[in-house]
Amino acid sequence: MSGETAGQSRNRQNDAPAGEQPVAIIMGSQSDWETMRHAAETLEALGIGHDCRIVSAHRTPERMFDFARGAKAAGYKVIIAGAGGAAHLPGMVASLTTLPVFGVPVESKAMSGIDSLYSIVQMPAGIPVGTLAIGKAGATNAGLIAAAVLALSDAALAERLAAWRAARTAAVAERPE
Amino acid sequence: MSGETAGQSRNRQNDAPAGEQPVAIIMGSQSDWETMRHAAETLEALGIGHDCRIVSAHRTPERMFDFARGAKAAGYKVIIAGAGGAAHLPGMVASLTTLPVFGVPVESKAMSGIDSLYSIVQMPAGIPVGTLAIGKAGATNAGLIAAAVLALSDAALAERLAAWRAARTAAVAERPE
Amino acid sequence: MSGETAGQSRNRQNDAPAGEQPVAIIMGSQSDWETMRHAAETLEALGIGHDCRIVSAHRTPERMFDFARGAKAAGYKVIIAGAGGAAHLPGMVASLTTLPVFGVPVESKAMSGIDSLYSIVQMPAGIPVGTLAIGKAGATNAGLIAAAVLALSDAALAERLAAWRAARTAAVAERPE
Amino acid sequence: MSGETAGQSRNRQNDAPAGEQPVAIIMGSQSDWETMRHAAETLEALGIGHDCRIVSAHRTPERMFDFARGAKAAGYKVIIAGAGGAAHLPGMVASLTTLPVFGVPVESKAMSGIDSLYSIVQMPAGIPVGTLAIGKAGATNAGLIAAAVLALSDAALAERLAAWRAARTAAVAERPE
Amino acid sequence: MSGETAGQSRNRQNDAPAGEQPVAIIMGSQSDWETMRHAAETLEALGIGHDCRIVSAHRTPERMFDFARGAKAAGYKVIIAGAGGAAHLPGMVASLTTLPVFGVPVESKAMSGIDSLYSIVQMPAGIPVGTLAIGKAGATNAGLIAAAVLALSDAALAERLAAWRAARTAAVAERPE
Amino acid sequence: MSGETAGQSRNRQNDAPAGEQPVAIIMGSQSDWETMRHAAETLEALGIGHDCRIVSAHRTPERMFDFARGAKAAGYKVIIAGAGGAAHLPGMVASLTTLPVFGVPVESKAMSGIDSLYSIVQMPAGIPVGTLAIGKAGATNAGLIAAAVLALSDAALAERLAAWRAARTAAVAERPE
Amino acid sequence: MSGETAGQSRNRQNDAPAGEQPVAIIMGSQSDWETMRHAAETLEALGIGHDCRIVSAHRTPERMFDFARGAKAAGYKVIIAGAGGAAHLPGMVASLTTLPVFGVPVESKAMSGIDSLYSIVQMPAGIPVGTLAIGKAGATNAGLIAAAVLALSDAALAERLAAWRAARTAAVAERPE
Amino acid sequence: MSGETAGQSRNRQNDAPAGEQPVAIIMGSQSDWETMRHAAETLEALGIGHDCRIVSAHRTPERMFDFARGAKAAGYKVIIAGAGGAAHLPGMVASLTTLPVFGVPVESKAMSGIDSLYSIVQMPAGIPVGTLAIGKAGATNAGLIAAAVLALSDAALAERLAAWRAARTAAVAERPE
Repeated sequence: MSGETAGQSRNRQNDAPAGEQPVAIIMGSQSDWETMRHAAETLEALGIGHDCRIVSAHRTPERMFDFARGAKAAGYKVIIAGAGGAAHLPGMVASLTTLPVFGVPVESKAMSGIDSLYSIVQMPAGIPVGTLAIGKAGATNAGLIAAAVLALSDAALAERLAAWRAARTAAVAERPE
Repeated sequence: MSGETAGQSRNRQNDAPAGEQPVAIIMGSQSDWETMRHAAETLEALGIGHDCRIVSAHRTPERMFDFARGAKAAGYKVIIAGAGGAAHLPGMVASLTTLPVFGVPVESKAMSGIDSLYSIVQMPAGIPVGTLAIGKAGATNAGLIAAAVLALSDAALAERLAAWRAARTAAVAERPE
Repeated sequence: MSGETAGQSRNRQNDAPAGEQPVAIIMGSQSDWETMRHAAETLEALGIGHDCRIVSAHRTPERMFDFARGAKAAGYKVIIAGAGGAAHLPGMVASLTTLPVFGVPVESKAMSGIDSLYSIVQMPAGIPVGTLAIGKAGATNAGLIAAAVLALSDAALAERLAAWRAARTAAVAERPE
Repeated sequence: MSGETAGQSRNRQNDAPAGEQPVAIIMGSQSDWETMRHAAETLEALGIGHDCRIVSAHRTPERMFDFARGAKAAGYKVIIAGAGGAAHLPGMVASLTTLPVFGVPVESKAMSGIDSLYSIVQMPAGIPVGTLAIGKAGATNAGLIAAAVLALSDAALAERLAAWRAARTAAVAERPE
Repeated sequence: MSGETAGQSRNRQNDAPAGEQPVAIIMGSQSDWETMRHAAETLEALGIGHDCRIVSAHRTPERMFDFARGAKAAGYKVIIAGAGGAAHLPGMVASLTTLPVFGVPVESKAMSGIDSLYSIVQMPAGIPVGTLAIGKAGATNAGLIAAAVLALSDAALAERLAAWRAARTAAVAERPE
Repeated sequence: MSGETAGQSRNRQNDAPAGEQPVAIIMGSQSDWETMRHAAETLEALGIGHDCRIVSAHRTPERMFDFARGAKAAGYKVIIAGAGGAAHLPGMVASLTTLPVFGVPVESKAMSGIDSLYSIVQMPAGIPVGTLAIGKAGATNAGLIAAAVLALSDAALAERLAAWRAARTAAVAERPE
Repeated sequence: MSGETAGQSRNRQNDAPAGEQPVAIIMGSQSDWETMRHAAETLEALGIGHDCRIVSAHRTPERMFDFARGAKAAGYKVIIAGAGGAAHLPGMVASLTTLPVFGVPVESKAMSGIDSLYSIVQMPAGIPVGTLAIGKAGATNAGLIAAAVLALSDAALAERLAAWRAARTAAVAERPE
Repeated sequence: MSGETAGQSRNRQNDAPAGEQPVAIIMGSQSDWETMRHAAETLEALGIGHDCRIVSAHRTPERMFDFARGAKAAGYKVIIAGAGGAAHLPGMVASLTTLPVFGVPVESKAMSGIDSLYSIVQMPAGIPVGTLAIGKAGATNAGLIAAAVLALSDAALAERLAAWRAARTAAVAERPE
């Protein structure tokens, strides 16, 4: 990816026809992008195509409905959804699709994302959302667990994922400095 | 209401044509009724018609969509929504109607309703949910604030509400025993 | 509102005779204004008259008593009350009027508004306060739920509110950038 | 006090003319008495006269106003106030008197008294409430700190308090069994 | 599965050679089974083979190491891990495999599973654990999200999953009773 | 106090013989002074003599023991104790004297003073600490409740306290700006 | 230890001259014994002598002072201290001795031991308390970490500890039932 | 240590053959060093040799396994482990050695170290981790409790530790300034 920013790379992928990508990254608002771009960058580093969309459960409920109802037909395999505060996006999308949905609690102002976490993770029996950590770490890990899911039927990706993990392991210094 | 239980009274009201009632009480599951019936009983005590419905954001998202989208046309003035855990019902309904929506956090098992409260009250700017206390007190108060709203254009109801409040005040004993 | 600041607009409205406005916005101290002005600005954007007052439950309990006892006679329809910490203003005003009261938990220093939230939302059965989110989002939403209540008997306002909501929906971009 | 229950003793003291007692114990509802009676029993054990009153900030705001405004003139020296949930009674009474006010957070259902504690202790600068522990321990200690305050100008009481404390110390066994 | 209990079914499946099952359900101790059996029952209802194992991160760290290191080779596709308190099992297993790992926070005694939740969900960037709700609902949903993952490459399972979801939707009554 | 800083005033009062002051303000470390000076300034504004001392429960337990055991004999009437984190100073001093002790939870780094609050307020039955709010507001209020206690037997102080309160009330503006 | 209860064994050990035991188990009140006996039973299982004492920081501060000041001279090597609520015992003892002190947060009523935990673990720099989990698990583990410390200079104990751990590992079943 | 920085001193000690040091300080990542260096500096001030290592439970699980399994043979007496978020390092190391392990919860971003604390302290019965305070204070105290343990069989160290404590006590000023 030499000579390009992550943003350039993402835009180019977004020019691909909708549904050609296995992963959809959706978020409740533009302000969530600062967090959710870490999911996108992780997927890029692993060579996994993805679309990034703003889909607000509260401001654009019909867009959300259409997106979620059509996600499987559009060819998506995995959905990553990030939202903050009373974060309803991951759970509502999960209620409208049988695709696996992973939720990222975005850090909120007053409650530092505790509200986001509880709103996402405490789903009732019947509608699962695989929830990751609050904030940037969670967004990165949403990309990684999506990769792990896709790697189950993509041996080449499985190798890239294993290599990515091995590189991270190798990068841990022996001593602090 | 002599000789009838609250339940009988409710059922009879529910036999009225949908939309003839000013208040809709919706809840995510049958198990929420133990809490939400206090909203119904409060409305009954004040002589306010109401429908009680199970509308699950997660298990019946389309029923929820249809309900919320059609609530105004159906003649409802106020919506009371109760849910527990990752409680998305009040906020999602609020995103789909401009009617005033009041949310009741139902007490959950592990988190005692803290998750319900945060999921309901921490709505982003743009979509309000007037949130009441966790549990039975909140359900009763949802009925009362609905009454206060309706009383703005119903002088007889305003008198009944004032009388109800006065009776409660008069019932407070001077000393504990 | 071209050529004026929100502040100028507010001041002009405040020059109107008390009680000519349907909404009262009250707050515990000057420092709450930074939060509560978002309620005022929302009401202005929707063309709803309002008074802004400092009414401290703790420092001016008699002013609070007089305000709340006289609110209905003064012509107010809805009261929005913001306070932080041991936030007693919304609940105390609600105990002194049958008008609908909406509470905004102002973010506090040590507890980030969790104390404000619990002090406002956990009202006992009998005295409801419709509580919004902590901070700015809650103040904006207090304005919106007040509008939703008033729109029940004001078709023109109902149209403005629907238009405001539609504009917000239309403003959501398709993709993050 | 042989041959009488604490209740009988309390009732007898309550027959004394109002204001003859140095301590007022007030609480938001009858249900708080199970907690607050420990304050009364502690005062009785120390021979300190007291009145027990139900004064609800929310259901009887005018009774509260009258009580607090008149407390000093009625001869009270110290006020103990217990309440649960959005517990406004201690702080509101403190805003209406310059007498020392001690608050007892009564254990609430969903939040186990955390809401009561925050609502009582997080008072803004200007109006103090000396807050004790949640529940029975707090009620007992409210009685004890009232005693400590009164003992500053009552040497005999100071001796009784010291003796009470010494007896408690002496009652601690050396080893568990 | 007529005429058998879920337990019988599970035992029979457990008699199958290790690694013939696509899902491993592991838990930190026997006491977690009361929660985790809901994952097993959900998988059974969907006709998904699974092994149930006790693997304690703390008491049997080497068993855990061996299990996690060998999980992929043993033929597992998805791992469901439940644990309570300082719940290290899901995260540690995730650190030792690239298979997708789903974590279930088991309700703990003093903290009701908040400690379990934080210990599982707050993983650092690099090692994802898709976390479900505390307790029984989370265990059920772990089974469902495992099914969603496996259904990506198993059309028959996708149909069974869709049917299961539709049946749940259809089972929601219209009104509470 | 024209022409002097609060600090100069305090130092001068501290030159008075120990025990000539009715109030002792103690704190666990120098870093608590930034908070606790608000107690000192409040007492000064009310003309109440006071000593300010660093007494660490953990680093100087014997100084604490000597201070608390000798506080009554030294002429103190009221003790104000501030501490942060595992804040043991107020409770330990209270265990060693029968004087009224007021505790101020100093804001801590990681937990924002929640740890300080719980460590101070949750005293067991038998040893009361009248606890104020976290941080500066609590320190100011500790000064005020000390004043309220001393005013019970000092009519001039009672007048000054009432005047201070009245001035605060008068200073509340009518409208935000 | 066949034919004896743990209690009998403990009593016998307690008949040994004070100071002949390497571990002191102290607790704030008799009611803590239900928790702390798990520390005693663990030490017994490992053949480590110990004394069990009630030492209340708040009710018997001088007993605590004497105990802590004299603990090293009395021959103790390790101190285990359990307390609940505003739990000051472990930290205060640690401030009075240089022996290693381990703290056990006893589960409290309203806060389930969160207050105990924060009061024990959040010690300021300079005075360490090695804190274990809330309740029974923490008490057991306090015994085990005391054993680990003593085993550093007692090879036979190290073997017994390793055997105890191995037996626990061996007792973990392969599958839940 | 005149003329050297703590860093130089540490590096020199780290040049010693592994296992010649009685204390190992391990941490999950380089970013934890800012906290954990306070443990190292405390040990240096007390003249206690130590190794500082980065050992990530999640990124280098095998390094962790090897370290913990070999710690006793390598000559370590005490292990200090710091980690943040879902902090599994202290507990996992404790599961793999019978040496005493002390855990330091490193302050995390969204949850300020509450997640770290719960993940470390809430260990199940059988595997103890002596947990210190969140952040820098906890790291310093981990060094001190390690010193207390080692001082049990090192009289010279016991004297240095007592002197260090005495110097800290002597450094507490009498009055704030």
